[in-house]
Amino acid sequence: MQPMTSTEIQLAARPTGWPTHDNFHVATVELGDLKPGEVRVANAYVSVDPYMRGRMNDVRSYVAPYAIGERITGGAIGRVIASAADTLPVGTVVLHQHGWSDVIQADAATFRAVPELEGVPLSLYLHILGMTGLTAYVGLTRIAQMREGDTVFISGAAGAVGTAAGQIARLLGAKRVIGSAGSPEKVRLLTEKYGYDTALNYRDAPIRKQLAEAVPEGIDVYFDNVGGDHLEAALDMMNDGGRLALCGAITAYNSTERVPGPDNMANIITRALSIRGFTLSAHLDLSAEFNARMTEWFAAGKIAYDETVVDGIEHTVDAFIDMMRGANTGKMLVRTGE
Amino acid sequence: MQPMTSTEIQLAARPTGWPTHDNFHVATVELGDLKPGEVRVANAYVSVDPYMRGRMNDVRSYVAPYAIGERITGGAIGRVIASAADTLPVGTVVLHQHGWSDVIQADAATFRAVPELEGVPLSLYLHILGMTGLTAYVGLTRIAQMREGDTVFISGAAGAVGTAAGQIARLLGAKRVIGSAGSPEKVRLLTEKYGYDTALNYRDAPIRKQLAEAVPEGIDVYFDNVGGDHLEAALDMMNDGGRLALCGAITAYNSTERVPGPDNMANIITRALSIRGFTLSAHLDLSAEFNARMTEWFAAGKIAYDETVVDGIEHTVDAFIDMMRGANTGKMLVRTGE
Repeated sequence: MQPMTSTEIQLAARPTGWPTHDNFHVATVELGDLKPGEVRVANAYVSVDPYMRGRMNDVRSYVAPYAIGERITGGAIGRVIASAADTLPVGTVVLHQHGWSDVIQADAATFRAVPELEGVPLSLYLHILGMTGLTAYVGLTRIAQMREGDTVFISGAAGAVGTAAGQIARLLGAKRVIGSAGSPEKVRLLTEKYGYDTALNYRDAPIRKQLAEAVPEGIDVYFDNVGGDHLEAALDMMNDGGRLALCGAITAYNSTERVPGPDNMANIITRALSIRGFTLSAHLDLSAEFNARMTEWFAAGKIAYDETVVDGIEHTVDAFIDMMRGANTGKMLVRTGE
Repeated sequence: MQPMTSTEIQLAARPTGWPTHDNFHVATVELGDLKPGEVRVANAYVSVDPYMRGRMNDVRSYVAPYAIGERITGGAIGRVIASAADTLPVGTVVLHQHGWSDVIQADAATFRAVPELEGVPLSLYLHILGMTGLTAYVGLTRIAQMREGDTVFISGAAGAVGTAAGQIARLLGAKRVIGSAGSPEKVRLLTEKYGYDTALNYRDAPIRKQLAEAVPEGIDVYFDNVGGDHLEAALDMMNDGGRLALCGAITAYNSTERVPGPDNMANIITRALSIRGFTLSAHLDLSAEFNARMTEWFAAGKIAYDETVVDGIEHTVDAFIDMMRGANTGKMLVRTGE
């Protein structure tokens, strides 16, 4: 039986600091009849990502902020359950950016069909085989210009992007890969499952001190998912000509006060460092290259992953907040079907 | 009559915070007889530069720190007064890096002959026609990848590098050039003599506030000679894809405490900014290109300059300290002869 309504999560009010349930509204939306060219998709998984926090603010950024009263948009994957479009027959698995809802109905052109492969869970298209993996790949190859033999430090290493980045750095020939995470379990996983040579628990001691002891030879590439004290620690230890890819600054996302930057910015000059911030939208031209390489690595059994799955669209906000607090290992997902 | 001694300035002790005379020693050195291949040079001018402050510290950097008890090395220009080398006969004007002394005697290979041209004071080879001009050129063209039509902000704009950078940015087709300096006289000079469209006196009000009002359209390229509050102000106003060349951080050089960095580092990510620190040594391959273009601009009367000249090698430390405090307009030099 076809669902005639969808449950979706809308932005009710802009968060100040940490988001709370009050900032969101769970809405039941009538789907109505399919119009020509439209499809109805039952989502299997929807994605919660750190960058979404930024879009909840009303500030100038690379993408427009989320509008009050509208659905939180972002990555999701599902299956076509009704179709008025020849291009996407019922049963097709599709990726899209319609975001936080269990069912979505829209023009077929806003969905992209993906192959359903034996042994490849659909959820992977939302992380290691999708935007998350591509983010790690772009950050290392284009932004940080990683080269074989580089020593690479990755913060937020047990998160979705971090677990991907560590493995990709290894596969691209890093001499040494160092990661940081926030629990003993995560740190163990980094070395045992994700091929990190060294993993630091930033809750054990100041990361600045730990990193200096762990990498006396210095760092060539820093992949930053965290900002704050981690960026400062990395700036201390960068080698001459080092390259820093700034992908995330989760420490600043939920702060209500202005957070001072690193106290060692002068190293940027004396060591001729290059710091580049990036978001994926400007680098989608690397998708084909990434897909080719990642598919090969994955098929060869060289890629590990973890998922932290929360069930039910109505728990999406919990999943989002938990992810911001670092409760996830690997990719945080909301399962809404299948 | 040939001088048989030289007066030179040696580092006596590493400064903590602002340098004082106690950190230096004025020494009289016996020159001895010329050995084969050596020349004796009477300096006309020696250069005092901000980067020298960094070399007075015992920290890891792109060049080794100055050694205690040894002459402060750096740019100088003079004339050969005695020669035991065929390549550099008496009378030749030479540039060199032997630094703070009135007479210098050394192997001819450590000097570079420069043409003595009608209407071109020798001192210019120590700034607009030399390393200072090249620094401005490298920072704009290679580091910040300046393009025609860019809006360019330059801090420390009335200094040696700043006055050069403003003019070069204009000649390279900047849409608008904004500068900051620390006195009404300097600010006036920027717009009246150096072609800046807008000049801000950072002592009038917080530079962050002034810059936001002066450049509502945003900045494409920031050339940083100052760091601190100026870098923070620039990060507020950078356009998407903006490029920052960090050349100096004079605000941090003499601080005994760690100075927090900008509180708006997240803009690096959301606006996909590129920040590159640089020092000239890695970019000397651009010398020929710079010399060709600058010579043409200079001959066409398109290049203005200022010099703040202090007389006498024994006043070099005063000149250096005054320069760090911003007492100079344009290039700070010590005249030691001619």
